[in-house]
Amino acid sequence: MTEIRELILDKFFSPNGGIPDQKDFKVTTSKFDENKPLEKDQILINLEYISVDPYLRARMQGVHTFVDPFKLHEPINSGCVAKVLKSNCPRFKAGDHVSGYFNWQEKQIVNVTKEVVKVDPNLAPLPHFVGVLGMTGLTAYFGLVLIGKPKKGETIVVSAAGGAVGSIVGQIGKILGCRVVGICGSDEKAKFLKSEFGFDEVVNYKSSTYEKDLKNACPKGIDIYFENVGGKIADPILFLINKHARIPVCGTISTYNAPIEKDIGQRAQYFIFSKQALMQGFLVFDYSEQETNEALKHLSQWIKEGKLKEKNVIFKGYDHIIEAFTKLFNTTNNTNIGKVVIDVTDQSGSSKAQQ
Amino acid sequence: MTEIRELILDKFFSPNGGIPDQKDFKVTTSKFDENKPLEKDQILINLEYISVDPYLRARMQGVHTFVDPFKLHEPINSGCVAKVLKSNCPRFKAGDHVSGYFNWQEKQIVNVTKEVVKVDPNLAPLPHFVGVLGMTGLTAYFGLVLIGKPKKGETIVVSAAGGAVGSIVGQIGKILGCRVVGICGSDEKAKFLKSEFGFDEVVNYKSSTYEKDLKNACPKGIDIYFENVGGKIADPILFLINKHARIPVCGTISTYNAPIEKDIGQRAQYFIFSKQALMQGFLVFDYSEQETNEALKHLSQWIKEGKLKEKNVIFKGYDHIIEAFTKLFNTTNNTNIGKVVIDVTDQSGSSKAQQ
Repeated sequence: MTEIRELILDKFFSPNGGIPDQKDFKVTTSKFDENKPLEKDQILINLEYISVDPYLRARMQGVHTFVDPFKLHEPINSGCVAKVLKSNCPRFKAGDHVSGYFNWQEKQIVNVTKEVVKVDPNLAPLPHFVGVLGMTGLTAYFGLVLIGKPKKGETIVVSAAGGAVGSIVGQIGKILGCRVVGICGSDEKAKFLKSEFGFDEVVNYKSSTYEKDLKNACPKGIDIYFENVGGKIADPILFLINKHARIPVCGTISTYNAPIEKDIGQRAQYFIFSKQALMQGFLVFDYSEQETNEALKHLSQWIKEGKLKEKNVIFKGYDHIIEAFTKLFNTTNNTNIGKVVIDVTDQSGSSKAQQ
Repeated sequence: MTEIRELILDKFFSPNGGIPDQKDFKVTTSKFDENKPLEKDQILINLEYISVDPYLRARMQGVHTFVDPFKLHEPINSGCVAKVLKSNCPRFKAGDHVSGYFNWQEKQIVNVTKEVVKVDPNLAPLPHFVGVLGMTGLTAYFGLVLIGKPKKGETIVVSAAGGAVGSIVGQIGKILGCRVVGICGSDEKAKFLKSEFGFDEVVNYKSSTYEKDLKNACPKGIDIYFENVGGKIADPILFLINKHARIPVCGTISTYNAPIEKDIGQRAQYFIFSKQALMQGFLVFDYSEQETNEALKHLSQWIKEGKLKEKNVIFKGYDHIIEAFTKLFNTTNNTNIGKVVIDVTDQSGSSKAQQ
């Protein structure tokens, strides 16, 4: 028996309870039998990289929202990369790296499903497989390409443009020949998105001239608005959409920490009607294996060609998972650009956050 | 030369100017040469039935909204039925009845396009060809069937359920095996919609218990919401939609007479995201000839089988067109159920409204 660390949900938090707090979680240790024989199609893995994503908040409330809730006092899970230590599944051998939805615990035995896939560290750095080559990249691709159906020369606007999904959406938009306008919360991010990721324009929603800036950045109106935030940031978008505009709704992070009844602002229906526009909510889980493989083929190809880049914000160690997670919701002091990943390969238990 | 009557737009009205008013219109007479030789593919027609529809308001403001504006001091046009007096087009002969978008003037020479079609008075009463077998029926069909894609047993909610489109949507929903819940503005209408058109439940949005009534009427949530009104009536709908709900947006009549910036209420984005729902605006003009013919085939068949009925509210004479039109926007004292049509076959110029 060895001792392993794990991160558990200690208390459900209220749907209306503001930003999730460190006190609702606990890092615990438990006994783990590494020598327990594996059943057929089981693997023993060692966790390496953990993805934290805004949607996880909805699983921590004890009620079904758009996803099932986590159980109390059990490890949380999310998209992760892990190393195979032992395998009783013909698809994997010890030493392989795999991605899948794993528990936030150092070691675990996993029943292999088709979601568990081998990843190639020669194709991209391992954290990318929970990012641009994982749920993040698929989310960006499905929303922008399959719902947005961008045509060359069209104008795409993406909110939370500095976020994991937003920064990929912008780059795919450029690859497909569109004008890409980002919305983010600081001038430094805006500058970075233009210089590093090739956004044509980026506007700061905190500016007093936000509405005017947005209008100026979209002289031909908006054909696709990739929605990540909702709320008042999204209101002026509606006035700028073109005939037959498409609005894939990937999330509305501005609404997650307050009662939804308070999300009062410009109603969308008139604009959707008068522009014969489409607004479509989606989750990656809605798409087929074939669509997933097709998307990953394109994403890998673009990475290989150097057209698509991912910036990772890396936190280190179990003690910093929740810090990394809660920072996703911090709009006043969030300098993160790109995909936030926790590196738990460091077995020393270091508690120093590193970005 | 004979004198003919016509209804012209005398003044543009402001997009924010409240309900359209009689004083913005004028019935005039002009000289018309009935003996002018017809060019190839022209017909001379005598107007019989005029359709008034909420969307026409948007064409009376002097600016492009979702449709082109009418010209000042020229006759307004809309979907109409007319009798062919003379024809120089092989598709029609004198005595035929045709439907198309015609000017609101007694006699006119029409350049035949593919939108002008012969209608069969033996299949249905002539007013039906600007209603259930015209734009009204097509609007209901395209929105409910092609966007809503109803499955047997699903719950459909339709607002403005007593209106021209709403009353057809409800009936098609029943034909396709769904539970149909209407929303309307009076208990009398609600009763009529249940007894005459087979709605399962109808709730009155003016009731103080509207939200509760709606919830009770949809014990399994809402799979399709056919949006005709927007505004605060639509807000509680969002809380009831099911996973993968569809919201065809046919119009938002509650917003047409006030500045759109004032249409403040529950934002839709969170609900669209969290239910992976679809909201899609549309106009009949978006659909192909093939889709139109397919829809008309079904609508005619259902009428022939007695499954689909249309109730017409008939006004008589040129002097009552605008009265009929403005009544569409009157929510305090509107007892209309069904499709509003003006019968201008009465050549005496009678000014008596008849419903």
